[in-house]
Amino acid sequence: MAYLLVCSLFLAVGVFAADPELVSDYAADPTATNASFFTFTAFRGDVTAAPGTFMVRKASLVEFPGLVGLGVSMAQLFFQPSSVNPPHIHPRASELLYVLEGSLAVGLVDTTNKLFVQKLGTGDAFVFPKGLVHFQFNEGQYAAKAISAFGSSNAGTVSIPATIFGSGIDDQVLSKAFKVGIDTIQTLKAAFAVKA
Amino acid sequence: MAYLLVCSLFLAVGVFAADPELVSDYAADPTATNASFFTFTAFRGDVTAAPGTFMVRKASLVEFPGLVGLGVSMAQLFFQPSSVNPPHIHPRASELLYVLEGSLAVGLVDTTNKLFVQKLGTGDAFVFPKGLVHFQFNEGQYAAKAISAFGSSNAGTVSIPATIFGSGIDDQVLSKAFKVGIDTIQTLKAAFAVKA
Amino acid sequence: MAYLLVCSLFLAVGVFAADPELVSDYAADPTATNASFFTFTAFRGDVTAAPGTFMVRKASLVEFPGLVGLGVSMAQLFFQPSSVNPPHIHPRASELLYVLEGSLAVGLVDTTNKLFVQKLGTGDAFVFPKGLVHFQFNEGQYAAKAISAFGSSNAGTVSIPATIFGSGIDDQVLSKAFKVGIDTIQTLKAAFAVKA
Amino acid sequence: MAYLLVCSLFLAVGVFAADPELVSDYAADPTATNASFFTFTAFRGDVTAAPGTFMVRKASLVEFPGLVGLGVSMAQLFFQPSSVNPPHIHPRASELLYVLEGSLAVGLVDTTNKLFVQKLGTGDAFVFPKGLVHFQFNEGQYAAKAISAFGSSNAGTVSIPATIFGSGIDDQVLSKAFKVGIDTIQTLKAAFAVKA
Amino acid sequence: MAYLLVCSLFLAVGVFAADPELVSDYAADPTATNASFFTFTAFRGDVTAAPGTFMVRKASLVEFPGLVGLGVSMAQLFFQPSSVNPPHIHPRASELLYVLEGSLAVGLVDTTNKLFVQKLGTGDAFVFPKGLVHFQFNEGQYAAKAISAFGSSNAGTVSIPATIFGSGIDDQVLSKAFKVGIDTIQTLKAAFAVKA
Amino acid sequence: MAYLLVCSLFLAVGVFAADPELVSDYAADPTATNASFFTFTAFRGDVTAAPGTFMVRKASLVEFPGLVGLGVSMAQLFFQPSSVNPPHIHPRASELLYVLEGSLAVGLVDTTNKLFVQKLGTGDAFVFPKGLVHFQFNEGQYAAKAISAFGSSNAGTVSIPATIFGSGIDDQVLSKAFKVGIDTIQTLKAAFAVKA
Repeated sequence: MAYLLVCSLFLAVGVFAADPELVSDYAADPTATNASFFTFTAFRGDVTAAPGTFMVRKASLVEFPGLVGLGVSMAQLFFQPSSVNPPHIHPRASELLYVLEGSLAVGLVDTTNKLFVQKLGTGDAFVFPKGLVHFQFNEGQYAAKAISAFGSSNAGTVSIPATIFGSGIDDQVLSKAFKVGIDTIQTLKAAFAVKA
Repeated sequence: MAYLLVCSLFLAVGVFAADPELVSDYAADPTATNASFFTFTAFRGDVTAAPGTFMVRKASLVEFPGLVGLGVSMAQLFFQPSSVNPPHIHPRASELLYVLEGSLAVGLVDTTNKLFVQKLGTGDAFVFPKGLVHFQFNEGQYAAKAISAFGSSNAGTVSIPATIFGSGIDDQVLSKAFKVGIDTIQTLKAAFAVKA
Repeated sequence: MAYLLVCSLFLAVGVFAADPELVSDYAADPTATNASFFTFTAFRGDVTAAPGTFMVRKASLVEFPGLVGLGVSMAQLFFQPSSVNPPHIHPRASELLYVLEGSLAVGLVDTTNKLFVQKLGTGDAFVFPKGLVHFQFNEGQYAAKAISAFGSSNAGTVSIPATIFGSGIDDQVLSKAFKVGIDTIQTLKAAFAVKA
Repeated sequence: MAYLLVCSLFLAVGVFAADPELVSDYAADPTATNASFFTFTAFRGDVTAAPGTFMVRKASLVEFPGLVGLGVSMAQLFFQPSSVNPPHIHPRASELLYVLEGSLAVGLVDTTNKLFVQKLGTGDAFVFPKGLVHFQFNEGQYAAKAISAFGSSNAGTVSIPATIFGSGIDDQVLSKAFKVGIDTIQTLKAAFAVKA
Repeated sequence: MAYLLVCSLFLAVGVFAADPELVSDYAADPTATNASFFTFTAFRGDVTAAPGTFMVRKASLVEFPGLVGLGVSMAQLFFQPSSVNPPHIHPRASELLYVLEGSLAVGLVDTTNKLFVQKLGTGDAFVFPKGLVHFQFNEGQYAAKAISAFGSSNAGTVSIPATIFGSGIDDQVLSKAFKVGIDTIQTLKAAFAVKA
Repeated sequence: MAYLLVCSLFLAVGVFAADPELVSDYAADPTATNASFFTFTAFRGDVTAAPGTFMVRKASLVEFPGLVGLGVSMAQLFFQPSSVNPPHIHPRASELLYVLEGSLAVGLVDTTNKLFVQKLGTGDAFVFPKGLVHFQFNEGQYAAKAISAFGSSNAGTVSIPATIFGSGIDDQVLSKAFKVGIDTIQTLKAAFAVKA
């Protein structure tokens, strides 16, 4: 009882051990664990994203506590035609994306600002190294679906557009950083719900 | 040129840096890298395992050198009805398995010898912690297919039956270890091509 | 008081930091620690295993909490003549075994199924890499004794015979995996007390 | 000779061991090393950034090879009045910034899109966790200077404006991602020299 | 509330995750965190060490809890003319020292007992690898000031003189170890306040 | 051939991957490896230290290249009566010492300068955390022997007396650091062969 209490408090606080080096088989009270601890059912059934949009479902530490300390997680990606998974970064893991249905154009930019682009068909895979900006674009006429593997139980996602234009960063900072006028910054901000 | 030479020698020797902590964006000669370095195409198209058998295709460091240092890999698993992926261990990563088609019974044994079994339907996932024995069994009438994520670019596989009965371990050792007669050991060995 | 409480709860739950990278000198309440925290006395005196059998005593996180976070542990191995330490795997550390008395035949199988065997005399040492199957056999007429070092405070042990034939895995799975009849599987299981 | 050759090839290829866990004192040929291997002189003297601009000088693996394997590096930051260090991410380390002269406004956005802003005076420090977007702004009338510490010998920098609008990402992808018209994207791109 | 309680207990106990691999953005209760969590103000203003002495101010886990899990810390070093930072070791990180004012002679001894000495002017930097003995000496006529970066949130310091001669180690042990008479040991001990 | 060449060059250069996270079974050319790669014979037979002295034999990366990447090593310690293993530090691993014969007094000083002392009899063990000063003293009338385990293939040793008084550190630095006159420093240095 007490064990689970501390464990769940700890989960909430989020100060975890490094992913890859547990000193126990797994991170659960062994007297209480059963197979459901290791099972994840929230990926059942596909979801249909709204026309023109992209949707993601994650199986990371938050959704699947059994992953704690195990250094691996997954995500399902659903792309309607013409949809984009905006440029983003995973701060804590590389991502290996595998196209289950349809086709995807993917892009990756390294720290020298070199852009890598690739068209992936069904069955192709692409790896995005940890901490680098990347995106996917469904240029095709049909919905696309992919599954991604991450080398951390909680890779995290920094979505660039929302982080930059939807978190409330001062107009002046953005204007100077992006070398455009305040009006352009405000146009960009308008598209994102700025947090109060 | 010389760079690539050293790199490939090093791949062959197999002394790699730890997976998760590169000190460069990725592990390739930046002047020579293009998008194909990050792309893997050998997962295209399903394969059909022979009746009653199980087949695996991997996208690990060996098949996909672009993964070096990135701490993630994948495998495709194809199960004919009644087939089993025999008890095995991945020495260098946990595995997160996701059922793409059909259903699978999975099992996991921890170091206290506790067995966890679970029936997974299409869309379900299950995590096997690093270094623990696990297996999958397609009890259904239809073929099943799964994709697995690993938190290492080269998780490795120790298949228990072939390792124990197909590597040439002395009959006497096995007889004592498994507490059965030499004849039973020889029956078990007969099923595996013992290395010369 | 509260400190020790949380600490012991945490030990029980088993979610520890990675072994090698503490951010404190050691993992104890500094106001309460004395030298006994770092001392282990349960290795005193040899034990005599029953004729024909093998015995192990561990100094790992479980028996010696002072090891927490320090990334090292030990085990004492006692071999009666003709005894075997059955094929097993340590999921969380490599093992360096040193023969204190007598002689031992050791074996190691890598993930390509290659078997390495070696006869060790008193004073010899052998290293078993993390996550690979290995075993020891006392072929001699005299008892043998060894001490092993592990690069984790809790290396864990997966004993293959008991894990496979003593944890309750379904006969059908084992029959298919080991390519022998159900009767042979039942012979093998009979030797191990299957958990209820 | 040969030693240094391999070492420099390896530096070029960029496949390094994880930063924090060398198995030698340092990563140099011990017969050739002298104190200059550990010394860095390129931080001597301040530099004066052009009016309204920001400048950085790094002491990372690239500029200071003696850091290899040691898991630490530094940067000097020079801010003219009204200058901004644009939103960016360090993919391989957290940053601890210390204000040597003047004052700075700093910002940090976490993966829940929460913005943290702080005004730092001379002598204040602020930590930016690994992989999260952050920026600095010199709102004052005087030049400001800071020194930053990183917990990796090569933290890397992903500058958001240049990465997104200066690497050649397709207009359509950016238009969809940022939810603005192609014209706005082209305005943003115009400010950055897109790579051919 | 409960979250913070556990967190602070845990801080006190000091069993932390490895520095470099958090599985959350940072280690705080996200509902309670504000920018001050990431801010450190105790470096404001220089301090003046007593004539002939050396002083240090740290921004490590103890003084700046926001660093937890982030793998980086800093220290300010103030040297009066003729003062020495005695030979010491940081057990958990390498140190990158940068001279802000004045000049310093620095020394480093590796595990082969090789001594490296270097004279640093203002603006020079020097790296001391993890776990090796090093020291600084202000030979100049003017006060010197330096700032150091560490690749751990809590590098720790083992000051050799106080550790050896001020912790109460038995005279006989020291006499044998340092190959001098008990009287010389007592002379050395007299300079340090031996703990009761 | 070329593989072994690169490997041995690399050994000489000393830039190794972190110990605990190989991405291969072990670090050798698999086509050339045999069981002797994993075997160490230089611990055979005891050695007799000169009267009143201490001797160590190591099985670390240097003496036993098969340990590369495996994160574990050992040392044999031989103590004549009245001998001391002088205060020292292992920069890259904790040490777990086990007394094989005789008895030992051991000491450990943490970074708060707290001294822990313990008397160990035959069969007792004691753990010295990474990077902290420790020593052993054979107070008994009989020779003592111990075996130590380390959680790194190359823990390294910083012997305090030789490092401080035998590496050539300037008298003035030592005089100030140890708060004694130059004459006392010279007495201490006389006992150690200062490197030219």
